[in-house]
Amino acid sequence: MMVSANSMEAVGVQPHGGNLAAASALFPHAPLPWVDLSTGINPWPYPLPDIPASAWTRLPEPGQERALCAAAAAAYGVADPALLVAAPGSQILIQTLPFLRPPGQVQVLAPTYGEHAPAWARAGHRVELVENLPDPDGPLPGVLLLVNPNNPDGRIVPPGRLLALADALAARRGWLVVDEAFCDLTPDLSLAPQIGRPGLLVLRSFGKFYGLAGLRLGFLLAPEALTAAMADRLGPWRVAGPALHIASLALVDRDWQVAIRTRLSAARLTLDATLRDAGIDILGGTDLFRLLRSPEGRDLFTELAQNGIWTRRFADRPGLIRLGLPPDMAEFVHQSHMVCRVSII
Amino acid sequence: MMVSANSMEAVGVQPHGGNLAAASALFPHAPLPWVDLSTGINPWPYPLPDIPASAWTRLPEPGQERALCAAAAAAYGVADPALLVAAPGSQILIQTLPFLRPPGQVQVLAPTYGEHAPAWARAGHRVELVENLPDPDGPLPGVLLLVNPNNPDGRIVPPGRLLALADALAARRGWLVVDEAFCDLTPDLSLAPQIGRPGLLVLRSFGKFYGLAGLRLGFLLAPEALTAAMADRLGPWRVAGPALHIASLALVDRDWQVAIRTRLSAARLTLDATLRDAGIDILGGTDLFRLLRSPEGRDLFTELAQNGIWTRRFADRPGLIRLGLPPDMAEFVHQSHMVCRVSII
Repeated sequence: MMVSANSMEAVGVQPHGGNLAAASALFPHAPLPWVDLSTGINPWPYPLPDIPASAWTRLPEPGQERALCAAAAAAYGVADPALLVAAPGSQILIQTLPFLRPPGQVQVLAPTYGEHAPAWARAGHRVELVENLPDPDGPLPGVLLLVNPNNPDGRIVPPGRLLALADALAARRGWLVVDEAFCDLTPDLSLAPQIGRPGLLVLRSFGKFYGLAGLRLGFLLAPEALTAAMADRLGPWRVAGPALHIASLALVDRDWQVAIRTRLSAARLTLDATLRDAGIDILGGTDLFRLLRSPEGRDLFTELAQNGIWTRRFADRPGLIRLGLPPDMAEFVHQSHMVCRVSII
Repeated sequence: MMVSANSMEAVGVQPHGGNLAAASALFPHAPLPWVDLSTGINPWPYPLPDIPASAWTRLPEPGQERALCAAAAAAYGVADPALLVAAPGSQILIQTLPFLRPPGQVQVLAPTYGEHAPAWARAGHRVELVENLPDPDGPLPGVLLLVNPNNPDGRIVPPGRLLALADALAARRGWLVVDEAFCDLTPDLSLAPQIGRPGLLVLRSFGKFYGLAGLRLGFLLAPEALTAAMADRLGPWRVAGPALHIASLALVDRDWQVAIRTRLSAARLTLDATLRDAGIDILGGTDLFRLLRSPEGRDLFTELAQNGIWTRRFADRPGLIRLGLPPDMAEFVHQSHMVCRVSII
């Protein structure tokens, strides 16, 4: 399937989660406040440290950004902080990356996060959505992009298979771009330790795992010529002072990272059990979101929305919804009684 | 003078103010902490309001960004918030704007803020630094850019003259780009109320006047097709949640704005008197910074740095320094006694 810059936008379905104004417009009678489970953001955020006044008042210093990159390199397992560039959100990296190489052929492993394909199309690339990864020994595009683990279905491609593809692409000056937005949950799957290999690029998101999506921070991990080119495009003082301060602490807080992984994993197992008891099919996901199929003849999206629970649906896949982790499982079970009616009956 | 992307960087002189690590490296024996007067940032920042947790934890909602743009439109006198797009700092707008039109001829009124010319050169434009504005009836470049009031000398071009140029440029599909980074001090000079005219673009910086440079927020004011193109380039969730919250309050706080203008103006007059008493020439500036010339045979930059006061010097104009407003004038007079020795003698 070929993609143009605008063809991805679906009519009547929000292109992203997290838009509660849209929720209230569609469901004006839903009980308030909304329980927003439409995103894949950790509901138990990293505790905000005190933020020094200077983080707000002064221009961020180059040394602060270097310290952040050193913390991120340690957290992600990147050999050298120069192989990493920080930006105000991974989204702006997704939007800018396609301009760092001449227009060519791009394959995006689909279905996946909806912002990648239009970003490459916007920069003049020929974008194709593909359902399977190409054979490393066969014809290859200039750029191959996937999200791993995938959003919304959690599909995982083993690192070894990706490295073989990266090497095959690099041999033709191609790129393998892996969006690891949810890889903090499963660090063993990350290609970050391999960064430095020609043609291997990884995107990381800070806000999802650390539960601080409003802070806006993301990283491109890539050969140094590319991180330098990205820094040159986005310019100095890219990352806000408070974000530099908070993330530099969070990224080195191994105790918190280990504890939250355990907590998210346990919460996800409880959620799965609850959903299965209610007769709902779980198609996949990560510890931060689940992809569900509405039972025959039902519409989970509407049922949940009418009960004040906002989830994410997909224009091209009716009946599927993505559900974030409820911050309070008992409240969720209570509030979503329609979902659970199968088990109640 | 023609400009390439790299020729602007001077050896041994910091390209920007605010880098205290560089200050300490150059002057390891200076008394600490540094008094940083190397930037033009208001030393009395807008008081930080309480920031709701959701500003950190949630993705910013489209409605919050619309509210910010409405506040900014009111503050700047722009007729319609759609003529305004917010970004994480005016710097990223400076870097991205040159990619929104095909490469062509660009004139930058110089000397001025050093980031403009390299940004246009980076996007493939032919950039020329000019000392005078062109005649609207004569040959014109594709893009004419100036900072008004100018940094670092405070040169002011009257709005009427700029509008005539904007109209002449627009008639040839050209742009007049006015960086109004310091125009909050002198709102009467702003072209913001004229935004919507073809070919007129204005850049505004939030951090300088509001004293919150670490928050990272800037605006492009331009015809709607251009604000839409910029938003499309930078993508959703461009501005962090805390920045949206704080700036939406600050931009509508007229009482604070009026009071701080008075305070900055009074402080600047006191500073000027102090400097003149010390026999120092003031070449120009705004109420947030002064451009000074070292007296014959002296080096103000080094004298002040040795006393723990960090200022901005310029690679191509030895002897000139830019001095920000001291937050505490008595302390400044005391600490900078070498500067004032003429009057002491």
